[in-house]
Amino acid sequence: MSFWDEKTETMKPAGLEKLQLKRLRHIVNYCYSRIPFYREKFRQAGLKPSDIKRLDDVERIPYTTKQDLRDNYPFKMVAVPYPKINRIHASSGTSGKPTVVVYTRGDLDVWADLMARELYMSGVRKEDTVQLIYNYAFFTGGFGFHQGAEKIGAAVIPAGVGNSRKQIQVMKDFNVSMFSSTPSYALHLAEVMDELNIKSGDLKLRVGVFGAEPWSEAMRKRIENSFGIDAFDNYGLSEMCGPGVCMECEEKCGMHIWGDHFLPEIVDPESAEIADDGELVLTTLTKEGLPLLRYKTGDITSFISGGCSCGRTHKRIARIRGRVDDMLIIKGVNVFPSHVEEIIMSFPEMGDSYQIIVSRDRQMDSLGVKIEVNPEIFTGSEVQLRDLRQALERELRSGLDVSVRVELVEPLSLERSAGKAKRVFDLRKE
Amino acid sequence: MSFWDEKTETMKPAGLEKLQLKRLRHIVNYCYSRIPFYREKFRQAGLKPSDIKRLDDVERIPYTTKQDLRDNYPFKMVAVPYPKINRIHASSGTSGKPTVVVYTRGDLDVWADLMARELYMSGVRKEDTVQLIYNYAFFTGGFGFHQGAEKIGAAVIPAGVGNSRKQIQVMKDFNVSMFSSTPSYALHLAEVMDELNIKSGDLKLRVGVFGAEPWSEAMRKRIENSFGIDAFDNYGLSEMCGPGVCMECEEKCGMHIWGDHFLPEIVDPESAEIADDGELVLTTLTKEGLPLLRYKTGDITSFISGGCSCGRTHKRIARIRGRVDDMLIIKGVNVFPSHVEEIIMSFPEMGDSYQIIVSRDRQMDSLGVKIEVNPEIFTGSEVQLRDLRQALERELRSGLDVSVRVELVEPLSLERSAGKAKRVFDLRKE
Repeated sequence: MSFWDEKTETMKPAGLEKLQLKRLRHIVNYCYSRIPFYREKFRQAGLKPSDIKRLDDVERIPYTTKQDLRDNYPFKMVAVPYPKINRIHASSGTSGKPTVVVYTRGDLDVWADLMARELYMSGVRKEDTVQLIYNYAFFTGGFGFHQGAEKIGAAVIPAGVGNSRKQIQVMKDFNVSMFSSTPSYALHLAEVMDELNIKSGDLKLRVGVFGAEPWSEAMRKRIENSFGIDAFDNYGLSEMCGPGVCMECEEKCGMHIWGDHFLPEIVDPESAEIADDGELVLTTLTKEGLPLLRYKTGDITSFISGGCSCGRTHKRIARIRGRVDDMLIIKGVNVFPSHVEEIIMSFPEMGDSYQIIVSRDRQMDSLGVKIEVNPEIFTGSEVQLRDLRQALERELRSGLDVSVRVELVEPLSLERSAGKAKRVFDLRKE
Repeated sequence: MSFWDEKTETMKPAGLEKLQLKRLRHIVNYCYSRIPFYREKFRQAGLKPSDIKRLDDVERIPYTTKQDLRDNYPFKMVAVPYPKINRIHASSGTSGKPTVVVYTRGDLDVWADLMARELYMSGVRKEDTVQLIYNYAFFTGGFGFHQGAEKIGAAVIPAGVGNSRKQIQVMKDFNVSMFSSTPSYALHLAEVMDELNIKSGDLKLRVGVFGAEPWSEAMRKRIENSFGIDAFDNYGLSEMCGPGVCMECEEKCGMHIWGDHFLPEIVDPESAEIADDGELVLTTLTKEGLPLLRYKTGDITSFISGGCSCGRTHKRIARIRGRVDDMLIIKGVNVFPSHVEEIIMSFPEMGDSYQIIVSRDRQMDSLGVKIEVNPEIFTGSEVQLRDLRQALERELRSGLDVSVRVELVEPLSLERSAGKAKRVFDLRKE
């Protein structure tokens, strides 16, 4: 049995679309009747809820943006009276007010069920011991995974972030079979395992689920090799619920978006037209507390066409390549940090940590990367260093269509982070 | 309606004792048959489960200590097969291995219900917005309160610890009506409110529940005045479940221990004999995952005699005065840090932060306190400083029966902590 909810996960496309249309019409009415923000948006667009007759009529609905959430801080886009709210999370709010997300009891139940669907898909069962290396404070990551694993009936260890040695000790002593963290923190934990002289064979790990930041296929291989696990990509955002929006199945060929709860579109980030490749736009089909119509996620991806041999019928998207606001334009060329990473990681001589540095010299943009070498492979000779640098510069130029200065640095010389790693330093903005 | 579970909370003492005996006999059999550690303890004591015939036969059972938990790290005292475990928490483990606590689904349900009982007793209802300022990583505090508030149906904000300005912003912007933290962190938050020029009248707070460290009646008054709330004392320990063991009712005259789940005793910490005042010993009556018989908590308290006018029949204990290993013996006199605090806090001229410093000078113990003055009341004149110092030294000597050096320091000059405050510095041990 590889399905948590076989009937829903494998429903025929026509049936899924019928369900989506029914739910779309309901949520549009719901938003229109309960949220003044949407009533006003519809009025400006000359649109009525009854105009939404077919699934692609969704394209007539105006977009909702993060700025709309900020402008309506904290509760002006909430659709239920206050006693119906059962949970409030908030984004870190690096600049100004945090972004608020509220859940009804029903929203929490759906969220737990979606996460159970995803974790079950990755292989988690009630016999597993699951170590969740995410922050639980305000952040949706910890609770999302926690509730899903709890619903499956696994033994859940709410481990939080930081204290890497204790994380490894717990992994070993408590027979942990699955863990979840950001991919960059997983690589840091692998380094700590090496320091402690613990091998993957000393652990009972089978599975890892990673997300909350873009990562590459090469990084997946490194994580899988370091821990001896099957590593899965997961994507979500707090505005939808947190993690639980989509995940890879055993085919590891794109993430299935749960179409019974989210209606996905992809649009060109510049023109805002429907596109094959671009910004993911999501409409919540069942959210009660804070429903969102055509929310611009800011995340860049594309649909993967064709059916999936896992049997699930829910549409797939490619791994997130970056954020609309992360995309670097270097001498007119679009560069995604994830693409830079993929090229770096294809060199076994390179370590796991790197920084991308963009600077401007006499009106000219210039792209550089600092990378730690891999001490296990690298001998340290000057000639090898130079050859390696030149080889990587060639690969980067051919892959990205811009030239890149490469600087190789010593292992462990770049700063580590317990959460999302800061990889890009754009000095043009400073 | 002031009861979450009226039938249980107000059951007649004879009925409660009958239930306790039934459950005690069950748990003794359960431990004996499932946990080799207990079988061996019973064998050494020449005791059989069938010897437990009356409630006070519990006194024949050997004690269980924290050292026993350490010796059986991580799972040797667990009573269920691994797939029955649904949650694992672990103490911070400052010295060596952490103390592990495991829960079955049933244990988690009981825990949530006990916390709902307590929060309901403090006045939390489903209309409330509850900000939980506790760590959720490994620690039982965050989850204990979270699950109880969720069960009541309140809006729960899992706020975590730290980032005090954001905590206050959330309190204000999200209409928080109840919060929970350590008492020392609550006082720190009150300072931050002052910095931000936010008054208690700007907030919707009604209730606060505080615990995880000893605090005094005077500290309660300060917290209540700073936030304009009703402040309740709460006590628990991870070995029992976390918070959820006992709490104050509206009478604020001792904490009701939930006798349907925990059988309390008080023993002399030195002689280990039953006593009126001393170390709290608890037997879990219903725990499935990690049941403990006669667990020495290390916490010092006493029973409060007589019925409680709230109508609850569960035995009350006085606020925790300190830990067995915290008790300071100064020139042969037992001094509890909580008593020092109580005397300090009775002076309105004193601030909220203080340190107790024990040192040894030519074989003689000497007790000192460093206290921040309260800038709102204190004018700063040399004469006032000297008079104040002398008055406090007089009070401390008469209250504690030992002489104490007092040093008054500037506001905000002592270190703050987001978790349990470190108040005692025993330099004799260094």
